[in-house]
Amino acid sequence: MTDQNTSPNCEKRPCHCPVWIGWLFLLIVAGGVFGLGLLVASVMEHRAEALKRSALFEIAPKEMDAEQWGRNYPRQYDSWHATQEMSFTSKYGGNTRRDYLEETPANAILFAGYGFSKEYLQARGHWYTLEDVTHTKRVNEKTPASCWYCKSPDVPRLIGEWGVEKFASHTFDELKGQITHAISCYDCHEENTMKLRVLRPAIIEGFAKQGKSINSFTHQEMRSIACAQCHSTYYFENDTNIVTFPWAKGLSVENIEQYYKEDGFSDWTHPISKTRMIKVRHPDYELFSTGVHAFQGLSCADCHMPYRTEGAEKFSDHHLQSPLANISRSCAVCHRWSEEEVRERVTSIQDKVREGRNRAEFAIAHAHFDIAAAAEAGATDEELAEARDLLRYAQMHWDFIAAANAMGFHSPQEAQRILATALDKASQVRLMCSRILARHGYTDEVVYPDFSTKEKAQELSRQFTAGTPPSLLKKQEPGDK
Amino acid sequence: MTDQNTSPNCEKRPCHCPVWIGWLFLLIVAGGVFGLGLLVASVMEHRAEALKRSALFEIAPKEMDAEQWGRNYPRQYDSWHATQEMSFTSKYGGNTRRDYLEETPANAILFAGYGFSKEYLQARGHWYTLEDVTHTKRVNEKTPASCWYCKSPDVPRLIGEWGVEKFASHTFDELKGQITHAISCYDCHEENTMKLRVLRPAIIEGFAKQGKSINSFTHQEMRSIACAQCHSTYYFENDTNIVTFPWAKGLSVENIEQYYKEDGFSDWTHPISKTRMIKVRHPDYELFSTGVHAFQGLSCADCHMPYRTEGAEKFSDHHLQSPLANISRSCAVCHRWSEEEVRERVTSIQDKVREGRNRAEFAIAHAHFDIAAAAEAGATDEELAEARDLLRYAQMHWDFIAAANAMGFHSPQEAQRILATALDKASQVRLMCSRILARHGYTDEVVYPDFSTKEKAQELSRQFTAGTPPSLLKKQEPGDK
Repeated sequence: MTDQNTSPNCEKRPCHCPVWIGWLFLLIVAGGVFGLGLLVASVMEHRAEALKRSALFEIAPKEMDAEQWGRNYPRQYDSWHATQEMSFTSKYGGNTRRDYLEETPANAILFAGYGFSKEYLQARGHWYTLEDVTHTKRVNEKTPASCWYCKSPDVPRLIGEWGVEKFASHTFDELKGQITHAISCYDCHEENTMKLRVLRPAIIEGFAKQGKSINSFTHQEMRSIACAQCHSTYYFENDTNIVTFPWAKGLSVENIEQYYKEDGFSDWTHPISKTRMIKVRHPDYELFSTGVHAFQGLSCADCHMPYRTEGAEKFSDHHLQSPLANISRSCAVCHRWSEEEVRERVTSIQDKVREGRNRAEFAIAHAHFDIAAAAEAGATDEELAEARDLLRYAQMHWDFIAAANAMGFHSPQEAQRILATALDKASQVRLMCSRILARHGYTDEVVYPDFSTKEKAQELSRQFTAGTPPSLLKKQEPGDK
Repeated sequence: MTDQNTSPNCEKRPCHCPVWIGWLFLLIVAGGVFGLGLLVASVMEHRAEALKRSALFEIAPKEMDAEQWGRNYPRQYDSWHATQEMSFTSKYGGNTRRDYLEETPANAILFAGYGFSKEYLQARGHWYTLEDVTHTKRVNEKTPASCWYCKSPDVPRLIGEWGVEKFASHTFDELKGQITHAISCYDCHEENTMKLRVLRPAIIEGFAKQGKSINSFTHQEMRSIACAQCHSTYYFENDTNIVTFPWAKGLSVENIEQYYKEDGFSDWTHPISKTRMIKVRHPDYELFSTGVHAFQGLSCADCHMPYRTEGAEKFSDHHLQSPLANISRSCAVCHRWSEEEVRERVTSIQDKVREGRNRAEFAIAHAHFDIAAAAEAGATDEELAEARDLLRYAQMHWDFIAAANAMGFHSPQEAQRILATALDKASQVRLMCSRILARHGYTDEVVYPDFSTKEKAQELSRQFTAGTPPSLLKKQEPGDK
């Protein structure tokens, strides 16, 4: 009867506009929900893509070949493969390694008579573990099989088959045919589940002696423990040559000093000072444990294996190297500074540690000669016993930082504390020797030989080892006091 | 004609529901906007309330009385007032100050013959500046007016009226009647604008010598500079007694060492070793400048004067004390740890610095006796010159950390580096003296007197000062080597 749009009833209520707005509102909401659905679907798809990789191929038990593991984890494999690339750490470019004996000839004095005075090159990536241990001058026909310990997944495999005693009873050369894979997947991962686990017995026993079970660690802790199985200090037990961690009393330098005091172990007798020495090996985990990053709950992997994304996949970078090579993905995740600021800060921290290391190094090198001079002057072993004992631990403290990676960065304050202890002990040795020398009629300064170059320092190491050292005492002219 | 609700036309379009939803939607939006309006109004009102305080009363030029300033800034005034409360820092409770000579008697040896061997008490809050400087045993009738320098806003007032030369030409006692207000508002703030500014000339000249204008600093920088006008090291220039900052070469300990080497200044001659000494005074700003908090752009006030809110007002806390007394408002603003974790971390940092301080302290105290023993044995000033020069800077390095507040916390790594330098220098002194003693026929250890208590150490200071020291040489029996 009336036109729909002009219906008097409808005109009373302004129904046209609200209806239009209502529909628009519903349309927007529907569109939004639809878009959200698409987004979720996309995320799920990517997630499924990421997940489906993990069960493509069955990995055989004790699979040594990283390439086989790599079929399921191509990104992790590729990044592990990249450990052959070390242009970041070599300051000479390419893969040229730094020669620590060239850079710091005092090393050849501190390690006189020991392998490290013959060769002390910068370490390279995991890719090179076999190549480098095979070609170092520190290995010879007497070297025990334990020198393979941290160089290959074949080691935990053989120890699993033979037991650690049998493994350690071999020589290095005897196992050359059976140890053929560089550090890779099997060293840290369980086959197929990829669960982190360690199989080397030294760390398991090291924790057991402190009442800790290796199985009690969380995943985050295992992200450090997997590294710690090799990046810790150790020694070869007398007679058995079994790799042993000096951890029974704890991980601090004082704990380890006390351990060696009671154990009485020594790696070698120093040919200059005739001191029974301890070689500390890269106590990275021990030192890291005392630092602020450990305090904050970080693991080794958080900085050294930062997460990367490639396309839709997030994975941890197996190209293990300095976090400074990856500032944006490691340091900058927490420290929102520019890369330049991060580098500046790290350099300033390491410079302070290096200064302390150099001070201690100088005092220890001279202390070896001071003891030798006192012996030359006629001091008995009894007179020199206390000085030698102090020097043994002075150098152990110095080496705790010198041998560790990262120039103390893993725990800067602790590093400086330890180096100050080293300096203090070495200074006490020098003061003692000065008095002993005086009692034997020598009041002049010791004639310290020149060890300012690698060659000169190595020659001194050879002369003292051969029993043909230069004289360290100034000839007393008649009429001299 | 037809009932409105049953209109055939209307029934064709479902207009009732959309209309109802549309209205509800509009109502919700309108309600939300209204609520937001109320919120903004409330914020503006509070802001206005906060702002209106700043112009209530005119503050007279050079107003010394904190109470007058406090009429406009009652919260800041109340918190400044609270500096008389120091139960947090006194480990004995209440306002009982720690006695550093009791705690570390070696202090009385290192400062033998100087005021700090007579009395070395823990500092108290700004409230006590006048009371404490008036009653200390380190002040006597010869004390120059410059000892008032950092104790009162009357000092910049008088320097402004007289000039610094005239001010410094007075004795301490002469100005007692004119210096009557403890450190307060006028020391750091411009009247009425409350702008931060410093009026003491030493810091202005200190920066000027480095080519920096005091007017170039940002507000954030002034939040440190205002503190640095007093919390820096200084000396009284020879002849004029003018307070001077040794900053011409920079703020590092090496810069300051170089400054004193060229300047040749000394505070006193040590009665034990006859060494011309330098007293370092609380180089808090210098040390802080090298630390990570400075690197991160923090100022003194960020940690020591954290923001507080009372009701609607936010203000900076003028109860200056350790941030550990205010963890939730200072440290925890950035470090989201529990208070216990913060304390644990700080304690562990300070323990390492304390260990280094104690090592250096021991070596320096003994080095003073070593030089004295060598002199007793007949060594000439020429023979001892190098040892004394080393000891002068060994103790200067030690004092750079020992005299600074916070046990090295302001820059822990730098503190340890400096203490290692102190230890190294002092150890070299001891080695030199051992050889000098030997050349003079003394090969036994020096007979170090007992300084294990405050009383014993002070008695030694008195004996050496009076020229009646105990013998430090073992009596050589006939037949002794």
